[in-house]
Amino acid sequence: MNGTVYMVPVTMGESSVENVIPSGVISNVVRLRYFIVENTRTARRFLRAVDKTFPIDDSVFFELNKHTKPDEIEHFMQPLYNGNNIGVMSEAGVPGVADPGALIVEYAHSKGIKVVPYVGPSSILMSLMASGLNGQNFAFNGYLPVKGGERVKSLKHLEKRSLTENQSQLFIETPYRNNALVDDIINACMPETRLCIAADISLDTEYIVTMPVRLWKKNKPDLNKRPAIFIIQA
Amino acid sequence: MNGTVYMVPVTMGESSVENVIPSGVISNVVRLRYFIVENTRTARRFLRAVDKTFPIDDSVFFELNKHTKPDEIEHFMQPLYNGNNIGVMSEAGVPGVADPGALIVEYAHSKGIKVVPYVGPSSILMSLMASGLNGQNFAFNGYLPVKGGERVKSLKHLEKRSLTENQSQLFIETPYRNNALVDDIINACMPETRLCIAADISLDTEYIVTMPVRLWKKNKPDLNKRPAIFIIQA
Repeated sequence: MNGTVYMVPVTMGESSVENVIPSGVISNVVRLRYFIVENTRTARRFLRAVDKTFPIDDSVFFELNKHTKPDEIEHFMQPLYNGNNIGVMSEAGVPGVADPGALIVEYAHSKGIKVVPYVGPSSILMSLMASGLNGQNFAFNGYLPVKGGERVKSLKHLEKRSLTENQSQLFIETPYRNNALVDDIINACMPETRLCIAADISLDTEYIVTMPVRLWKKNKPDLNKRPAIFIIQA
Repeated sequence: MNGTVYMVPVTMGESSVENVIPSGVISNVVRLRYFIVENTRTARRFLRAVDKTFPIDDSVFFELNKHTKPDEIEHFMQPLYNGNNIGVMSEAGVPGVADPGALIVEYAHSKGIKVVPYVGPSSILMSLMASGLNGQNFAFNGYLPVKGGERVKSLKHLEKRSLTENQSQLFIETPYRNNALVDDIINACMPETRLCIAADISLDTEYIVTMPVRLWKKNKPDLNKRPAIFIIQA
């Protein structure tokens, strides 16, 4: 019988494992010996944080990132055909959403292999929960275009969609460009459009505030190098 | 100083608390004495499952649902102004997303009250993680129209958007109408469009499968009365 693919969450930054990962998940993860991971060093560090005696040297880590070639994925799956389970881990938070992990899941489904998602921290979900914006209809748009003109156009498009479809719009930016993005949102969006800025989710420095754009103008936070999610709703 | 609003997850169905809620979250929740909940009976049952000695009778439960009037919300917030923390709980999974909890959060932000999201199970997030479909760009659309013609139109619209914007499209249905929805998807969507059906997330009967529509035609699962999430991507 084939093994199962487990989608294993990790912490986001320096938060304590107990606060963000259920104990039942941890008990199961420490039994795994095969892993497909976005970054081997981070994955090993996480497993050691979870269990000081975890047998890192008796475990196998396959690295899945933008350099991975399609034919390598078939190789990563071999342990499953031998009846072993595999854990998939991203660099931060839950895997399979904003990381390459979905490739493994897609492949698993094509071979009839079972995939089980575990509960863990997600900045997308947690920012939405704490935003007060529409969670009954929302879209996560990933990164917006970097170039000024295209980005303003994209922001106006998302703002309009949030109004016409009553769909709140989430997006992210490379952390060192967060402050520039906030400036663009303030300039591109209407004064009454609500903007939620959620930074450092699950960390001691967590910051989640929702206000109309006109109030953000006078209260711009410094988000430089802080992982953040942005949500707008007109 | 004002209290804090904590977004408290609960189990989805009969899963064990240890598997879906971090121990650090549980330790904090059992210290709360004020709750704003979608259903008081479910909330009390959850607190007893978490801690047999939880002082239910010394705690205050405000019920927030579609019958709640706007002026009641101001009343619910009073404990916060007195420095007490409040936990918000929905009927299943994390609050503030597909439930009325967002109203409380919106109100809290308007008063400058801090909101903290806790980690817990979300069928939206977990189905996406285990679907293999695009998690870098996705939309949750809630319920589709019930009437046949409108529903087919809506499905075709979402399928087209998934293609033109490369945005996977999630939606739900009242569980007793799931089988009819699957028939509509199979009829409305193109044979190669991928459909993920995720049912009973986090339960022993969990079922998550992604296949092209043409393969679902011959392998229709019975989803009657099982909570399910549907994801399409053309």
